Amino acid sequence: MDLRPPTVRILLQHLEHLPGVGPRTAQRLAEHLLTVDPEDLQAFAEVLGNLRQSVELCSSCCLLTESDPCVVCTDPGRDHTVILVVEEPTTAWAVEATGEFRGLYHALLGHLSPLHGVGPEDLTIDRLETRCRAAGVEEVILATDPTVEGETTALYISRRLQPLGVKVSRPASGIPVGGEVASVDRVTLAQALQLRRRI
Amino acid sequence: MDLRPPTVRILLQHLEHLPGVGPRTAQRLAEHLLTVDPEDLQAFAEVLGNLRQSVELCSSCCLLTESDPCVVCTDPGRDHTVILVVEEPTTAWAVEATGEFRGLYHALLGHLSPLHGVGPEDLTIDRLETRCRAAGVEEVILATDPTVEGETTALYISRRLQPLGVKVSRPASGIPVGGEVASVDRVTLAQALQLRRRI
Repeated sequence: MDLRPPTVRILLQHLEHLPGVGPRTAQRLAEHLLTVDPEDLQAFAEVLGNLRQSVELCSSCCLLTESDPCVVCTDPGRDHTVILVVEEPTTAWAVEATGEFRGLYHALLGHLSPLHGVGPEDLTIDRLETRCRAAGVEEVILATDPTVEGETTALYISRRLQPLGVKVSRPASGIPVGGEVASVDRVTLAQALQLRRRI
Repeated sequence: MDLRPPTVRILLQHLEHLPGVGPRTAQRLAEHLLTVDPEDLQAFAEVLGNLRQSVELCSSCCLLTESDPCVVCTDPGRDHTVILVVEEPTTAWAVEATGEFRGLYHALLGHLSPLHGVGPEDLTIDRLETRCRAAGVEEVILATDPTVEGETTALYISRRLQPLGVKVSRPASGIPVGGEVASVDRVTLAQALQLRRRI
């Protein structure tokens, strides 16, 4: 006899679809959800239910936003001559948190991956090109991930943007600050040595 | 500037309250939820919102149920002379899955823990005693966890039930099936040796 009430069984199915959540974790989450304050649970359910209606992609830069265009694109205080390109909209949150960047963003919504059938037309590269053609964009920083796909995507975009005369750059790869030289992988270490600076 | 839309920020707060979910995992979950099929997300939100209304504790055995009394308590095909006691209602699911037990259950909704101010009156021990007083109960299996609190709780309950003349037992502790003798902790191994069987 399956003792799990039907509603709990459905809940477990939904939880098991979450990334990194297997049957055991799903059960632990369900147990927790069955004991939290009902008002909290209601609020959680509501935010989940409203999520897709409330949050959309900015029609210009493809960041997640509740008003289109987003707060970055409409901010006159930001540097509209620089666009930093990321693969996923959420990566921009991490970049912004550094406080180092005051320009605009552009989310590609993925990376080129011929093996998975992802070509340039599946990303927002056309839209990026259009933004760069608009007067005033001087530099594009390609902050795609330093993976094979990310590098390929960066290379492809840099070639697409070359005729437009904008400066194209890429953040440095190297030893993470606070990390140990010995624990850094070989490729990163090689990169870090090639890009060494005089002190 | 915090680039996370307000709805996403609220969602992240709720996700971070889940057990074992930190800021990184919460963000990964939120990213996933922002890309799943909207209908699935809606169904997930609905099951969460209905959870506390749909699922309650059986007024007899305290298992989770959508109809009170639960399917186990009302099943004439089960052995109503044996009650297996667990700490949490969900633990009964695991016991039931063994297919070894055909009796009734009783969830204590916790264990005795004087340090955390949990006394006998905070558990469903009175209700268990009442059930045992009812004619027909012959054995109570105390399947509380083999932890200090679980053992204490089992000992306390066995003393409470002694005057009623019901047989009180406890599942064996020992080397988990499929486990390695070398990797079993000392206390469990000692227990397993004491409870050794002739073959």
